[in-house]
Amino acid sequence: MSTIYFDHNSTTALKPQVLQAMLPWLTETTGNATSRHVYGRNARDAVEAARKQIAACVGVQASQVVFTSGGTEANNFAVKGIAANLTPTQLLVSAIEHPCVSRPAQSLAWHNWQVQTIRVDAQGVIDLADAEQKLNIRTGLVSAMLANNETGAIQPIAELAAVAKAHGAFLHTDAVQAFGKLAVDFNALGVSAMTISSHKIGGPVGVGALILDKRVDIAPLLHGGGQERGLRSGTENVVGIVGFAEACKLAVETLKTRGETQSRLRKQLEVGLHTLGATLFGQQANRLPNTSFFAIPNIEGETLVTALDKAGFAVASGSACSSDSTEPSHVLLAMGVEPDLARGAVRVSVSDTNTEAEIQGFLKALQQEVKRLKGLSAVAA
Amino acid sequence: MSTIYFDHNSTTALKPQVLQAMLPWLTETTGNATSRHVYGRNARDAVEAARKQIAACVGVQASQVVFTSGGTEANNFAVKGIAANLTPTQLLVSAIEHPCVSRPAQSLAWHNWQVQTIRVDAQGVIDLADAEQKLNIRTGLVSAMLANNETGAIQPIAELAAVAKAHGAFLHTDAVQAFGKLAVDFNALGVSAMTISSHKIGGPVGVGALILDKRVDIAPLLHGGGQERGLRSGTENVVGIVGFAEACKLAVETLKTRGETQSRLRKQLEVGLHTLGATLFGQQANRLPNTSFFAIPNIEGETLVTALDKAGFAVASGSACSSDSTEPSHVLLAMGVEPDLARGAVRVSVSDTNTEAEIQGFLKALQQEVKRLKGLSAVAA
Repeated sequence: MSTIYFDHNSTTALKPQVLQAMLPWLTETTGNATSRHVYGRNARDAVEAARKQIAACVGVQASQVVFTSGGTEANNFAVKGIAANLTPTQLLVSAIEHPCVSRPAQSLAWHNWQVQTIRVDAQGVIDLADAEQKLNIRTGLVSAMLANNETGAIQPIAELAAVAKAHGAFLHTDAVQAFGKLAVDFNALGVSAMTISSHKIGGPVGVGALILDKRVDIAPLLHGGGQERGLRSGTENVVGIVGFAEACKLAVETLKTRGETQSRLRKQLEVGLHTLGATLFGQQANRLPNTSFFAIPNIEGETLVTALDKAGFAVASGSACSSDSTEPSHVLLAMGVEPDLARGAVRVSVSDTNTEAEIQGFLKALQQEVKRLKGLSAVAA
Repeated sequence: MSTIYFDHNSTTALKPQVLQAMLPWLTETTGNATSRHVYGRNARDAVEAARKQIAACVGVQASQVVFTSGGTEANNFAVKGIAANLTPTQLLVSAIEHPCVSRPAQSLAWHNWQVQTIRVDAQGVIDLADAEQKLNIRTGLVSAMLANNETGAIQPIAELAAVAKAHGAFLHTDAVQAFGKLAVDFNALGVSAMTISSHKIGGPVGVGALILDKRVDIAPLLHGGGQERGLRSGTENVVGIVGFAEACKLAVETLKTRGETQSRLRKQLEVGLHTLGATLFGQQANRLPNTSFFAIPNIEGETLVTALDKAGFAVASGSACSSDSTEPSHVLLAMGVEPDLARGAVRVSVSDTNTEAEIQGFLKALQQEVKRLKGLSAVAA
């Protein structure tokens, strides 16, 4: 396919080295990691080696890694599982969380939890003063993402974790977008739980992990055979876990050079976007190096995404997971962006495999489409 | 590896045709199935084609298939999700359920559900009279497996479903072991929900499905982006789903010939086992064609599994998912087997790719190991 892929925050292609690591587990007889025979022991060894590798990538011990089916499950597990072992009190989530954090949180309102939202500023960054004001001795759990999937804005999680700790609350962070794009050290962040996902970093889809501080008492979401020390039952996805570990290793090893390439591409892109009269969201925030979120006033984001797709560029109109919806982005609304402008939002998320020529091609196509769409709207008006 | 794999009820190797179907999704740029660009639409098309194919394999409409991360999640989803939308009353599960049904059921006891167990007979078959006696107008949900993973005993699910229906209760069946080894027709069974899994039938690990009757109102277990019509959030595992569909298709197409080969191998095996003085569990039951569960009196199952592994044969000492435990099989205890004999249990589960020569080799190795182990115990005594 000749369409240029600029939607790497949504999902990424499997890296060739990751596929190489996975292939033996796709082509040979493999065992269930709980079986005691040689196939089972080999599977177990592969899972535990992967666990060790992933743990090293975020600076924790292997026993702190619980494998899940992905970021959504890990976030549900964190929010519901930690809450399940606490007396229902107050739960705080930021206003810009992914639905797989905010909806589990809302579901706890049925279980006597009082759910409150931490505000963000106009750049999409969590308002620490608001968090401090809302945190109190009754706060059991805080959940806030490390970097936002839409704007790319990096959040003050270490500071928030310190505030949470001072009030005796656990802090969970959804690091799905940050991990692989930023250096992520669990202990330096001082969080109690952290979600990471494989398919956002060139690993296979269908696998993720929740990293846990040893002091966190968490209830399982999936009951059964007692895998993952009883915290997550279900046959281990050996091939997925092996691929995830390889992707983590590659992501950490190449973090600096990839980040430099992405920053360069993004700068080039954003200079061009300004020339076209785009509004860039969260531009003053410290952002992920690969993410630009913008709108061209008076052009619907959905319309632009469709036009750009036809022109050979795959971009997103917001978080892919909510792109079935035509509501403006909740992230932009939380930042105080007017709904009309927010409806124009388009996200470009590059990878280091993208090129300057692709960015130039994109800007050219965008210019043409904007001109055409403005012409159409002028005719309509 | 030269060890013969006789543990196909635990997990199966990926079929070459399944890998072929998956490869494009492992080697090319793939989209998130919720994205609107061409990569996203292609991913969506692949997921929906797979859903249609899997639906056809169990005789339902595509809209009745909800993809999950596997059998454990589907069983947790069924039990907890159906219960969540009912007033807590009575929940019935059979005595031989996999822990990923019985433990979610037990977890509901905290939510005011009264959990009761349906007995099985000495052959490991659900006692319908006991079910009828326990079912009453307060029964909300019944969960019983279609075929047991340890004994292979096929259960009277259609009859049980009719009884449940007469009392206004939903019936969920865990068909993980039955599907791919028996013809499974959702509507003929008359159940309300049914779990199937990919890695038991030559498909990839990490994907399964819950099949739902349209009249069942089920609450999601994983909240988030609203995938699977809001019933199961999380980025769709496109490559896994594509592989699962191919495995389903192959399993259904080759059901008869595979079953004949498996029956032949099993008969040969069981004749040999009798000669060696083995006790066969559930032998009078209508069983899956590939499963033999037996014990050699006075020899520990774990010991025998280890010895056979060294001799080049991979077998199980019970359900792989509980093989971390040294407790005798709950299935055998429910059948009234003495704990001492139950501790001797060994499961052989063949595939049509196994051969008569492998069975002969296994019987020979078993005879030698039994002789050696009995010699050891005679010395010890």
